[in-house]
Amino acid sequence: MLNDTLARITGSDRETGRRVTDYLDTLTKPPGSLGQLEILAVQLASMTGDDFPRVTPPAVVVFAADHGVAAEGVSAFPQEVTAQMVANFVAGGAAINVFARQIGARIEVIDVGVASELASGELAQGAVDEKVRSGTANFVESDAMTRAEAIQAIESGIRAANRALDAGCRCLIVGEMGIANTSASSAVLAVLSGEPVAAVVGPGTGIETSRLAHKQAVIERAIAARQPQSGNPLEVLAKLGGLEMAAMAGAYLGAAARRMPVLVDGFIATVAALVACRLCPEVRGFMIFGHRSREPGHDIALTSLDAKPLLDLELRLGEGTGAALAFPLLEAATRMLAEMATFASAGVAAGESGE
Amino acid sequence: MLNDTLARITGSDRETGRRVTDYLDTLTKPPGSLGQLEILAVQLASMTGDDFPRVTPPAVVVFAADHGVAAEGVSAFPQEVTAQMVANFVAGGAAINVFARQIGARIEVIDVGVASELASGELAQGAVDEKVRSGTANFVESDAMTRAEAIQAIESGIRAANRALDAGCRCLIVGEMGIANTSASSAVLAVLSGEPVAAVVGPGTGIETSRLAHKQAVIERAIAARQPQSGNPLEVLAKLGGLEMAAMAGAYLGAAARRMPVLVDGFIATVAALVACRLCPEVRGFMIFGHRSREPGHDIALTSLDAKPLLDLELRLGEGTGAALAFPLLEAATRMLAEMATFASAGVAAGESGE
Repeated sequence: MLNDTLARITGSDRETGRRVTDYLDTLTKPPGSLGQLEILAVQLASMTGDDFPRVTPPAVVVFAADHGVAAEGVSAFPQEVTAQMVANFVAGGAAINVFARQIGARIEVIDVGVASELASGELAQGAVDEKVRSGTANFVESDAMTRAEAIQAIESGIRAANRALDAGCRCLIVGEMGIANTSASSAVLAVLSGEPVAAVVGPGTGIETSRLAHKQAVIERAIAARQPQSGNPLEVLAKLGGLEMAAMAGAYLGAAARRMPVLVDGFIATVAALVACRLCPEVRGFMIFGHRSREPGHDIALTSLDAKPLLDLELRLGEGTGAALAFPLLEAATRMLAEMATFASAGVAAGESGE
Repeated sequence: MLNDTLARITGSDRETGRRVTDYLDTLTKPPGSLGQLEILAVQLASMTGDDFPRVTPPAVVVFAADHGVAAEGVSAFPQEVTAQMVANFVAGGAAINVFARQIGARIEVIDVGVASELASGELAQGAVDEKVRSGTANFVESDAMTRAEAIQAIESGIRAANRALDAGCRCLIVGEMGIANTSASSAVLAVLSGEPVAAVVGPGTGIETSRLAHKQAVIERAIAARQPQSGNPLEVLAKLGGLEMAAMAGAYLGAAARRMPVLVDGFIATVAALVACRLCPEVRGFMIFGHRSREPGHDIALTSLDAKPLLDLELRLGEGTGAALAFPLLEAATRMLAEMATFASAGVAAGESGE
């Protein structure tokens, strides 16, 4: 299934992009005056192959999983918070629920590796059970997961993208929940980017400055012990990553294979995007980046992908929240194309051509 | 009416702001992890005096007026475009119409000084006739308007804010249309900020680089000829400003007098905000800034107001578009307060206190 999906991903449609670029200059505004919104419109047209792309309704999929490295004391929150937050997602009380409702999104919460069993009530109410294993192993001591488990998690992500598409959604937002997953993301990013661990480690959900050095030492120890080949993204993911990160990478691949635009969230989501792009460089053409996180490693991940995010609001929550907050800009870009009058249709005199 | 309005503007409600600051840390997210959105929530609570402020539905008011200085060839578009764009606003085909529909805004288009007479059809279909005069005088040759005319335009802005409030709107977005109004705004900003004209002049809707020097010379000539006192904002506005700029300043004042949050747009809107704050410093407490424009003088105007805008999308259209695009972030901030579960209500373990 993973290989099938990779084979179906092709480049974005530059011809449609060029046509939309020309059309934008016929709309009743000075050429280029809507800045990034015009670039977004061209990107969405190129991704979908549609001169008048649509992004509504969007889908939000949130993957949850636990991390063995939490045992090293790298997070400000105890591991049971992962399962508690899944219950909060199912009940509709988390930040991502609020922002998903605001943008009219279909939301799905998927357990790909929560350590504890979810209550049957939570599963009945909407958490999807795709558990690959009950959390990763502590990567200081052994590989986080096997290669087969990583592929299984990736494929659960592909299936989630397909469900969103089959439900009629036209843009994919991928979020995550997993105590200690900034540690796993920093480890994967350090190996894939070649940057020192010190540059990619940050406070995550909020550990104190004094504990940052400990978090950094744990990750350095893990990379030295696991020795992943940086040219083999699947191996890096299996040895140092997380089940939710694998599923996120899979969801990006699944969306791109069916030409659905992906709106990437913050630090963990961007590291997962980097994994997906290393597996298949053409998936990059289907990604828009929602926001710049306050987590310091995010800039390095964005730079590795040559990505400029839409928002910079000093968020560091995850769950898909930054992407959901950016979504109205994508909707605005598509509405601009579909609804604005042209100089000719409105009888407005065009200006001289500006710079 | 202006003096009455000024007398009714009081400071924002810090006590409510403090209460909301504490409440934010009980919600199911690491403290501070929603960054600027949390700051927005506190600001909106302080402005409205409501622990659970609402900003929907918003109002968009667009003031249109012409500028005598257009005769100097400072714009890429001919003067008749102002009236043509008013017709486009009334027909619903301009960018601001599209974005106003997206955010469910009440929209009103107000003629405070278009040079030509609008067709009766346009007026019948929704343009409000508050014409003070048929465009300003060319400020190179004489004062743009009299002090009485400036006050009349300010008062039409106060009335527009009151109509929005009386219609049930809870947040005010103020836009403009007026060929050559970046020239008037640059002139006003140079005098109020004390910065050199060269620093506050830009391409506006898109004149070529070779014409920038001409635009700058025209503005320098006008300031030298008009000699406004920088400590007298009403005089600066009357001698160098525009009728739509005066009305915008009035709308900010009218909203603040009734504790309605104002979402400020780009360059021209921010210069009008600076005029309003010089007339009454406490109005600043009711302003949120939507975006950073590509027009170079905008940074100087923002700095004069100690303002950090929400978006940075290289827009330079005006009409209120940047503010309308930022509006969903205000809505998200209020929904976060109203809809998120607390650690206690969701049964989620709180973390150690972070940095």
